[in-house]
Amino acid sequence: MICMDYNPKQMAIREKVFNTIISCFKRHGAENIDTPVFELKETLTGKYGEDSKLIYDLKDQGGELLSLRYDLTVPFARYLAMNKVTNIKRYHIAKVYRRDNPAMTRGRYREFYQCDFDIAGQYDPMIPDAECLKIVHEILSELELGDFRIKVNDRRILDGMFAVCGVPDDKFRTICSTVDKLDKMSWEDVRSEMVKEKGLSEEAADQIGQYVSLQGGMDLAERLLQDAKMSQSKQACAGLTDMKQLFSYLQLFQVTDKVVFDLSLARGLDYYTGVIYEAILTQTGPVPVAAAQNGAGEKAEEGVSVGSVAGGGRYDGLVGMFDPKGRKVPCVGVSIGIERVFSIMEQKAEASAEKVRTTETQVMVASAQKNLLEERLRLTAELWNAGIKAEVMYKKNPKLLSQLQHCEDSGIPLVAILGEQELKDGVVKLRTVHSREEVRFSYTHSISEIKRRTLDV
Amino acid sequence: MICMDYNPKQMAIREKVFNTIISCFKRHGAENIDTPVFELKETLTGKYGEDSKLIYDLKDQGGELLSLRYDLTVPFARYLAMNKVTNIKRYHIAKVYRRDNPAMTRGRYREFYQCDFDIAGQYDPMIPDAECLKIVHEILSELELGDFRIKVNDRRILDGMFAVCGVPDDKFRTICSTVDKLDKMSWEDVRSEMVKEKGLSEEAADQIGQYVSLQGGMDLAERLLQDAKMSQSKQACAGLTDMKQLFSYLQLFQVTDKVVFDLSLARGLDYYTGVIYEAILTQTGPVPVAAAQNGAGEKAEEGVSVGSVAGGGRYDGLVGMFDPKGRKVPCVGVSIGIERVFSIMEQKAEASAEKVRTTETQVMVASAQKNLLEERLRLTAELWNAGIKAEVMYKKNPKLLSQLQHCEDSGIPLVAILGEQELKDGVVKLRTVHSREEVRFSYTHSISEIKRRTLDV
Repeated sequence: MICMDYNPKQMAIREKVFNTIISCFKRHGAENIDTPVFELKETLTGKYGEDSKLIYDLKDQGGELLSLRYDLTVPFARYLAMNKVTNIKRYHIAKVYRRDNPAMTRGRYREFYQCDFDIAGQYDPMIPDAECLKIVHEILSELELGDFRIKVNDRRILDGMFAVCGVPDDKFRTICSTVDKLDKMSWEDVRSEMVKEKGLSEEAADQIGQYVSLQGGMDLAERLLQDAKMSQSKQACAGLTDMKQLFSYLQLFQVTDKVVFDLSLARGLDYYTGVIYEAILTQTGPVPVAAAQNGAGEKAEEGVSVGSVAGGGRYDGLVGMFDPKGRKVPCVGVSIGIERVFSIMEQKAEASAEKVRTTETQVMVASAQKNLLEERLRLTAELWNAGIKAEVMYKKNPKLLSQLQHCEDSGIPLVAILGEQELKDGVVKLRTVHSREEVRFSYTHSISEIKRRTLDV
Repeated sequence: MICMDYNPKQMAIREKVFNTIISCFKRHGAENIDTPVFELKETLTGKYGEDSKLIYDLKDQGGELLSLRYDLTVPFARYLAMNKVTNIKRYHIAKVYRRDNPAMTRGRYREFYQCDFDIAGQYDPMIPDAECLKIVHEILSELELGDFRIKVNDRRILDGMFAVCGVPDDKFRTICSTVDKLDKMSWEDVRSEMVKEKGLSEEAADQIGQYVSLQGGMDLAERLLQDAKMSQSKQACAGLTDMKQLFSYLQLFQVTDKVVFDLSLARGLDYYTGVIYEAILTQTGPVPVAAAQNGAGEKAEEGVSVGSVAGGGRYDGLVGMFDPKGRKVPCVGVSIGIERVFSIMEQKAEASAEKVRTTETQVMVASAQKNLLEERLRLTAELWNAGIKAEVMYKKNPKLLSQLQHCEDSGIPLVAILGEQELKDGVVKLRTVHSREEVRFSYTHSISEIKRRTLDV
C-alpha cells in the first residue's frame, strides 16, 4: 500500500497522544490555525535545499502550479507574511507529504503528521525560547515515554566556533551539516568527511573536535565566554550570553534536570538563526529499539535523528522571505516527532495486557428474550437523549450471550438488560460486565441511575 | 488565494462544531479511522460519473499514479474491502479535494472537510438506517442552526415509480438526476427537461409529476402500498414496506417531528441502493441566506443542494466493487455538510455581541512593578505544573495596563498580580477581569485558590 490507513485501535492511541499534546499547547495559551494541504509550488521552492526533490507536485491540470506541503513551518511563515501577523502563539497539527527517497531502503511514510508549536513576535531575549523547552519537557513527561534529554545549542555559537577554528565563511553551512551527523557517526568519520569530502584543514577539524565534545549547563556557557579563542567571536559571545540567560529561565521553569548545552548539536535546516534544540529518549530498553526497527526513525520530522522525539529552534529570517518588503518577524518553535511517539505508544499497547478501547460506549442495551427490539430501541434513544454513550444490536432477536460477548470484546462496562419479567415489573436490570454483579432499578429511575454509574466506571 | 487559510477565530468555531459532532458519533458507539489523502488513481476512476473531471491528480514523478481523494465514501469502501472488514460503525472527519469547476462562477473551495458516519454490516432492515437519521436529528438540534426538516425516500420506490409510470429502464438514472433538481427548479422546468432533453413521453412525465408532489409519513407509505399503479412494482413495494418499518423505528427514537417521506427526493449519486435522506434548514431568516450568499451552497458535499446541511443513504454495492471476489458489504451512512455549518456558525458569531475566544487561557500572571520577570515566570511555571492554563508576557517590564488590556482583548478571566508589596507580604493579588474585584491570598495557597476559581469561571 502506498500509504497507511489507520485502523480504530491506532486512531484511539493517536487521539490520546493528540489530546495530551493539544492540552499542553492550550495550557500555554496557544491558538490554532490551519493552512491548505497544497501551496503554490513557488512558495516551497528554495526552502528545503537538496530535499526539494522530495516535494510532491500536483499535475498541471490548468491553473496555478501546486505542491503538497513539505512541512508546517514554511506555510506558517507564508501565513504570517500574507496576513501581516506580527504576534502569535499558535499550534498546528496536520499532515505533510514527502516523496519516497530512493536512497532510503526502509519504508518511509509519504504522509505523516507534524505537530508544531511556534511563537512569533519581537520579545525580550530567550523568554519564548525557554517556554518552547518547557513545553517539550511537559509533553515528554506526560506521555511517559521513558527518560529523555533535551540538547540545546545556538547557531551563533556554532558559527562563532567555526570562525575561530578557521573554517572559511562559505563552508559554515556544509560543515554544520557534517557536525549534525555526530549523533549517528563517530567523530573519526565526521572528521574524515570534513577533511576529505569538504576540504577542511586538519587543524580546523581538530579544533572543532575539541569544542563539539563539550557538554554542560550554564557553567559551560560561562567557561566558554572566558575561552581565549571563543571570546574573540562577537557572534559566539552573543549566543553564549543568551545561553546563560536561557538557563536562568529554565531554572525558574524547573526543567534544567533534562536540559544539556551540547556543542555538537547542529540540526540540519538552514533557516535557524539562534537557539536550536532536540529532545532524545535516553532509555535504551525495548521500546525505543522497537520503534526504530519499524522505521519510525526515518519517518519523523525534518532533522529529527535516531532517538529524537522533538526538535526546533529560532528562525528570525524565514517570514521576511515571504514579505514583499522583507519585513522580518522573529520566530521560535518546536515540532514534536509525533509519528515516532505513535510508534512507541503502539508498541507499549501491544506489550501491555490492557486492551485499547476503540469506542467510548458506556452501556449496552440488551434483551434476555425475543421480540423486545422496540423496547431496546426506546431505552437506547432515551439514553442517547440523556447524553449517555449507548449501543444496541441491530438484530431483531440477538442472543443474550452474543450481546454480552460484544461488551466483553469492546470493553463496554455496563449492560442494561430488558426481559419480559423486568418489563412486567417496570424495572431494568443493570449488569456490571467486569464483576457480573446485577441490580434492578425502576424503569423511570433507570436513566438517572445509569448516568450516575457511568460517571463511576 | 488558491485555498483558505483558517485563522484562530475560525478554528475556534470549527473546534466547537467538531466537538459537538464527534461527541454525537461517540455517543452512538462509533470508532474512528483515517485513510491517506491520496488514493491510487484507479481507485477513484469510474466512481463519480461526470464529476470525475474534478479530481486532482498528482504529477507523475515515478511510482504509482495518485489522485487526491474526492470524498470519504469511496476510500471507506476501499478500506473495508482491502482489510476484509464486514462490520464496523465508524466516523471519519477529513479534507477532500475537488478542482475548480469552470462552469461555476462563484468561488468553490478546492479543499473542504467532510464529516461522515457510516454503518457497515449485514443487519435486520432499517435499524442502522434509523440510527443515521437519529444522528442527523441530534446533531442539527445541538448545533442550534434553526429549524430543519429531514426528507427521506428510497431508490427502490423511485425506480418502481419510474417503471409504473412508463420510464424505459435505461432512462432511470438520467430521469432520477432530473428529479433531483426539484429543490432548485420548478416542476415545469423539470418536466421540460425530462421531455425535451431526455426524450421522455409527456404522459410518463405527468404521472411522475403526480407522485413527486406527495409528502407524508408512515400514512403515505401505507397509501402508496394500496395505490393501484405503485403496488404493481415489487421494488416499490419492498421500499414502501421498509419505509413503514423505518418510520416505526423513528417513532421509538422520537424524531418523526422533523422527518418527512418526500417522493421528490432523488439525490445525485449513482451508488445508492435503498433509503436516501437529506436534511435542510427551513428557517428563511438571515442566517441561511447569508451562508448561501458566501458560496456555502456550492462547497458542500456531493449532492448536498441549496439549504441542505446533511445527506446520505444506503449503498449496498460499493464495497463489492473493490473486492476481488465482488463480496458485498451492505452500508448506510450520512455526511454532515460541515462547511455550510461552519459558515452559518461564523455568521452567527459575527452577528452576536459575544466574543469568540481563540485561546482557553484561564489566568494571566502579571506584575505591577518593574523587575519582577523572574517572579512572574516562577509562578507561571507553577500554574502550568498544576494543569492551569496560564500566560505571561514575554517582556522584562511590561506595563500593568498592557497586561490587563491583553486579558480584556483575549477574554482571560483572571489575573494574578505580583507586586513588591505582595512579595514582601508573601501574597498574590487575584483580580477578576470582568468585575475588577481583587482579593489577596498567601503565595503558598495561591495555586490551589486559582485552581478553585478557574473551575468557577
